[in-house]
Amino acid sequence: MSTVRRPENPEADPRVKAVFDDIRQTRKTDFINGFWLYLAFDPHLLEETWFGVKAVMAQPSALDSLTKEMLYIAVSITNACRYCVHSHTAAARAKGMTDEMYADLLRVVATAGRTNQLLNGLQIPLDQAFEADS
Amino acid sequence: MSTVRRPENPEADPRVKAVFDDIRQTRKTDFINGFWLYLAFDPHLLEETWFGVKAVMAQPSALDSLTKEMLYIAVSITNACRYCVHSHTAAARAKGMTDEMYADLLRVVATAGRTNQLLNGLQIPLDQAFEADS
Amino acid sequence: MSTVRRPENPEADPRVKAVFDDIRQTRKTDFINGFWLYLAFDPHLLEETWFGVKAVMAQPSALDSLTKEMLYIAVSITNACRYCVHSHTAAARAKGMTDEMYADLLRVVATAGRTNQLLNGLQIPLDQAFEADS
Amino acid sequence: MSTVRRPENPEADPRVKAVFDDIRQTRKTDFINGFWLYLAFDPHLLEETWFGVKAVMAQPSALDSLTKEMLYIAVSITNACRYCVHSHTAAARAKGMTDEMYADLLRVVATAGRTNQLLNGLQIPLDQAFEADS
Amino acid sequence: MSTVRRPENPEADPRVKAVFDDIRQTRKTDFINGFWLYLAFDPHLLEETWFGVKAVMAQPSALDSLTKEMLYIAVSITNACRYCVHSHTAAARAKGMTDEMYADLLRVVATAGRTNQLLNGLQIPLDQAFEADS
Amino acid sequence: MSTVRRPENPEADPRVKAVFDDIRQTRKTDFINGFWLYLAFDPHLLEETWFGVKAVMAQPSALDSLTKEMLYIAVSITNACRYCVHSHTAAARAKGMTDEMYADLLRVVATAGRTNQLLNGLQIPLDQAFEADS
Repeated sequence: MSTVRRPENPEADPRVKAVFDDIRQTRKTDFINGFWLYLAFDPHLLEETWFGVKAVMAQPSALDSLTKEMLYIAVSITNACRYCVHSHTAAARAKGMTDEMYADLLRVVATAGRTNQLLNGLQIPLDQAFEADS
Repeated sequence: MSTVRRPENPEADPRVKAVFDDIRQTRKTDFINGFWLYLAFDPHLLEETWFGVKAVMAQPSALDSLTKEMLYIAVSITNACRYCVHSHTAAARAKGMTDEMYADLLRVVATAGRTNQLLNGLQIPLDQAFEADS
Repeated sequence: MSTVRRPENPEADPRVKAVFDDIRQTRKTDFINGFWLYLAFDPHLLEETWFGVKAVMAQPSALDSLTKEMLYIAVSITNACRYCVHSHTAAARAKGMTDEMYADLLRVVATAGRTNQLLNGLQIPLDQAFEADS
Repeated sequence: MSTVRRPENPEADPRVKAVFDDIRQTRKTDFINGFWLYLAFDPHLLEETWFGVKAVMAQPSALDSLTKEMLYIAVSITNACRYCVHSHTAAARAKGMTDEMYADLLRVVATAGRTNQLLNGLQIPLDQAFEADS
Repeated sequence: MSTVRRPENPEADPRVKAVFDDIRQTRKTDFINGFWLYLAFDPHLLEETWFGVKAVMAQPSALDSLTKEMLYIAVSITNACRYCVHSHTAAARAKGMTDEMYADLLRVVATAGRTNQLLNGLQIPLDQAFEADS
Repeated sequence: MSTVRRPENPEADPRVKAVFDDIRQTRKTDFINGFWLYLAFDPHLLEETWFGVKAVMAQPSALDSLTKEMLYIAVSITNACRYCVHSHTAAARAKGMTDEMYADLLRVVATAGRTNQLLNGLQIPLDQAFEADS
């Protein structure tokens, strides 16, 4: 159950078709996952979202592609975004994340969740040593 | 301002001293940051927390040390834990994170924050392709 | 699957019946959605919740009714409350929110999710210009 | 720095004075903390908030007063509400929370933060045994 | 204290200067707030962020400008983003949000925070009536 | 649908069997809930998690066992962790939480969610009276 109706024939709209073509070409697959299919209810939002995600995730940058997927998973877990957790875990696996790496990611993400709680509870003053300007 | 009083002479307690010694040895520095100084108000909680964090973050595992720090930052940002953001950003820089890598991390974390909102809004059904058991 | 059992004949309790009657009258419909049906497991909590929500959402105030529903959606998305997202999106649509307005709401909510991450990461000092007392 | 100006002479407004009198009487102290002083910028919001909080926190109910304060702390930590963490930790201490109890609360809250991350990552199906209706 | 050093002479970089010029022109003021000054540590991230925010917030769309600022505040409060709360509350006031409107926004945001907790606790099944496809 | 495959015969691994035996003995039941069954995909993570949770939740400490379960519920609700909410609500009921106590817990958790939003919006300065060192 979604909050928008899934468009029945989204590629009838040329803006949607152009985005879907670019998704297929960028990912080298014919599979378009549900996020984009539903987002096509608003072609402008679809364009903005796809080109924004593509610029960050599908183009070479300072961090490698798998590290970026794992960071995406970490945020999505913390925001309790079920769909995002599933889609980016699948993407990370496709880029080489093994079960051992995934278990290690979960250990870090869980440890951070644990100490975040301690520090949001203790409200400790910042150490001067953390000052970026120092 | 913290929710606990910082112990005045924490290493007078041998359990605290043992943890602080291990922190100094593990990190090869005499600097003990405020988290541990305040956490010493309860030696048992201090031990549990330090040995838990050390096992995950300071011992070799499937992910390299810098990737783990960056995942820690990603969670801490999402949980709005100010102290954690500062301490783990400083740790990641000490392990080689450049400004370019940090900017890239922020781009990914911000993009995830953006699409997490879209998907928590749209509530799209999961694609069968994400099924780990398939 | 819920954490409480749905009461079988909730209106047998006169306090529940009074609340349900008020819901029907306020909303001009016979439909009582699941939130209230389950919440009837504790008539006191039901009363407190309904009259609190009604005072804020169903009575004229400084903001118009549709703006209030959209703010409710924004918070519910950010808190990852699935039921709340669905019920308030349906309510906003009933009050006139079009697909174009909903897409625009999602754009704003997503952009906020993006820059919230950047600023919770960067931890930038507040500008003096934001001071309400100045 | 706040987002509203603190009213200079809030008790000049009789609605504000009535609330402040009730706070002083309920808590048996002349001290009014900043939350209420600033909230007085809108007497209606002040009334709604104070009487809502009082009904839940200052009146006898199924849970004892200290347990309720500790639950309040747990939520406030998780929501990263700095002021709330401080004010409710102070309130819990005033109601008898010792350092040992506070350390134990932090342990539980931190452990929950840890496993919440694991489960929001793993997305495990619910066990039938948790079904309240069964 | 920030996690990046504020660039000393950011407009020496022509990409930064172009963004700052566009900020000044779009907002019709010489004031550049700290977010952009610090974000200039990475001109690419600065460009991406400013043009993204501008497209959503500074250009006519289905929702009016003040409603968009209020939605931004609602998300920022829920994400506990202190800087964002301040900057967007200031922006909303500049666009006409009165104290009465702000108090009403807070009432809605607080009520949503309340019922989000109830529903994330109760885990009630979705009503068929919320189905967008129905 | 989970992000890992549920191991088919987890107790074939002696480390998993040892943990499962300890779970059965600690809880005095043969039932092993899904969290542990799936977590067995990585025996090391399973061990770390179970012994960590057991140390905090299943051993005598400053807070009684039911209070600890209720704190766990409060955090899990706020983090929108569906599985955690269900499993810890079931655990709390098994330890004596009545419907009246659960309704009261929900009232507190909901009230905290409400005022957390108000204070994360208002950004009120801390009162000196909250200072633990004073």
